[in-house]
Amino acid sequence: MIKVTYHIYPAEGESLEQKVESVCLEQSVELPRRVLPSHIAREVVGEPLDSEALEEGGHRVTIGWNPELTGGDLSQFLNTLYGNISLQAGIRVTGVDWHSLPEGLCGGPAFGIGALRETWGIPDRALCATSLKPAGSTAEELGELCREFAAGGLDLMKDDHGVTNQHWAPFAERVRRCVEGVRRAEQETGRRAFYFAHVTARADRCVARYRRAAELGADGALVCPHIAGMETMHQLARMDLPLPVIAHPAFSGGLTTHPRQGLTPELLYGQLWRALGADLVVYPNTGGRFSFSLAECEAINRAARRDDLPFPSAFPMPGGGMRRENIPQWVETYGPDTVFLLGTSLYEHPGGVREAARELSAMLKESP
Amino acid sequence: MIKVTYHIYPAEGESLEQKVESVCLEQSVELPRRVLPSHIAREVVGEPLDSEALEEGGHRVTIGWNPELTGGDLSQFLNTLYGNISLQAGIRVTGVDWHSLPEGLCGGPAFGIGALRETWGIPDRALCATSLKPAGSTAEELGELCREFAAGGLDLMKDDHGVTNQHWAPFAERVRRCVEGVRRAEQETGRRAFYFAHVTARADRCVARYRRAAELGADGALVCPHIAGMETMHQLARMDLPLPVIAHPAFSGGLTTHPRQGLTPELLYGQLWRALGADLVVYPNTGGRFSFSLAECEAINRAARRDDLPFPSAFPMPGGGMRRENIPQWVETYGPDTVFLLGTSLYEHPGGVREAARELSAMLKESP
Repeated sequence: MIKVTYHIYPAEGESLEQKVESVCLEQSVELPRRVLPSHIAREVVGEPLDSEALEEGGHRVTIGWNPELTGGDLSQFLNTLYGNISLQAGIRVTGVDWHSLPEGLCGGPAFGIGALRETWGIPDRALCATSLKPAGSTAEELGELCREFAAGGLDLMKDDHGVTNQHWAPFAERVRRCVEGVRRAEQETGRRAFYFAHVTARADRCVARYRRAAELGADGALVCPHIAGMETMHQLARMDLPLPVIAHPAFSGGLTTHPRQGLTPELLYGQLWRALGADLVVYPNTGGRFSFSLAECEAINRAARRDDLPFPSAFPMPGGGMRRENIPQWVETYGPDTVFLLGTSLYEHPGGVREAARELSAMLKESP
Repeated sequence: MIKVTYHIYPAEGESLEQKVESVCLEQSVELPRRVLPSHIAREVVGEPLDSEALEEGGHRVTIGWNPELTGGDLSQFLNTLYGNISLQAGIRVTGVDWHSLPEGLCGGPAFGIGALRETWGIPDRALCATSLKPAGSTAEELGELCREFAAGGLDLMKDDHGVTNQHWAPFAERVRRCVEGVRRAEQETGRRAFYFAHVTARADRCVARYRRAAELGADGALVCPHIAGMETMHQLARMDLPLPVIAHPAFSGGLTTHPRQGLTPELLYGQLWRALGADLVVYPNTGGRFSFSLAECEAINRAARRDDLPFPSAFPMPGGGMRRENIPQWVETYGPDTVFLLGTSLYEHPGGVREAARELSAMLKESP
């Protein structure tokens, strides 16, 4: 059985048993038990496995689902996980027992933290990354920015998720220029940095752009799974030209912000995305322009790194409003298995982005 | 310029101007104005066009976006519409001026209300539909159900969104049986009903299942855009084998439930889905197992039917918990351009589903 854990908050006048029964029916047969053939009631309806009261109100409940409900489709697993109940109050999905899924359904990232560290030759320290922007820049300008960041010592450069295939910097031309930027920086400094191309588009074009990015020499791909399709990201991670995948949270916000609905941020960003193929997961860091608490961010980090799941781990990639001068403090808080994603704080450095990258990478090399 | 309207609620200590400026930057360049080249600040950053105070607090603000931001990609339009701001508090997207979009970006449904009424030979009354379920039934059983509902006089039968390609009823076998069910009912009664096959899956498989459904004689397709990918639905609507598309709200819930975040239900279900190719939009009706108000449902209906948008209209398809005996009342409330989606209330009819369908369709034929 596929085991999923929920926090359940019955409505006024509803018992816990009624609410749990309604979830068991809603996410499987969508009919009341009285009209079900008995073999379907027995085999197909979800089964409550355990329950305990939560201190803050509500109950933690684990429900077991017949793996046949997925029919081997990852999309149908997503539907069983959070299809119709996404529209109901008082149900939050908090955990999945990934070992309980049919083998091969969620393959996880193609690389994971260990393999990426090996590929990149960075065995143990925290990493730094930036986004190449703003939209409106030419491919040549973005390629030049990429070179400057790489020459300054940044580890990863990714396209901004707002940069795709606009006439200012068409996809293939931009990828070519950014790859060239990374290579020229390497000639200059002897040190290799890595460039991720943004491939979000209609799923077939997303797959084609991923292939093209690999052909053009990009080191990875950036995708917004809640726009391109969650299973599209999984498809990228399973392709025969594996580039590591960074997942970006655009359009995902409403899923995690209600305390008694949706999914917890740690489940969505730290585990589900990872199960769906993300090697690195971008999430909005606390204290910036977005709204997670420090505890939620730390929970995302732990979830992404856990080494007891049946697929590789993923690098947490907090972003949004971090200042470069606070990075040593953030490394102490979040630990070395983190990719820090900085933007404004590098772009506004009075000495230019190469100097900003140099300062930031020096801090990371000195960090424990 | 692409014009989008928001309800904006500044945080404690933040002015309306600051909050609006932050949206204008966040959804375009993601950098502060002080580091932008002046031509990018001028041409690429969003531009506030007007603003008025809302009675209930907050402001209605229209922002204009450079259409080049989309780069001709519908996915990038979705990112501009609600990418990063999905992760921020106090911003609700309430409207899009569809006439302001680049031509061809959102093609809308292939049919729309008028063409569907003509195809189906139902010029003016309200329609009734059901879902074929429960999961766990065989293809033969679902085909038989389909025949019974059709023979009783239902207009549309769709697969349940929990029924996809499980071994109980594999996709092609099920579609074949349900098409046969519709045809046998027609032989029996002389009246044609219409069957929609559920095609949600990884985008490439979704497209393949849509083609296969058409080849096998299905009359339409059901898809969950928030699982298969929103632009995947648009792709189906633009294919050379056009089947009308029903959009299902699985996994979409969190987007509309917060009063000061997300999208309004009328924008998401009534307009955005329609722009993305849905001919019929399923939404959770008020008073059932889900949580919309009557006013929200009526707003969805109006939005789906509006005839002043640059693409065809869509049938609103309220579902979830409606009783067959209340349908005349619902027709009076919602009007004839509605497809009523009933499940339990038909399945539990003591005389069987054919009798239930007969009663329901008689009510609709008598309705004004």
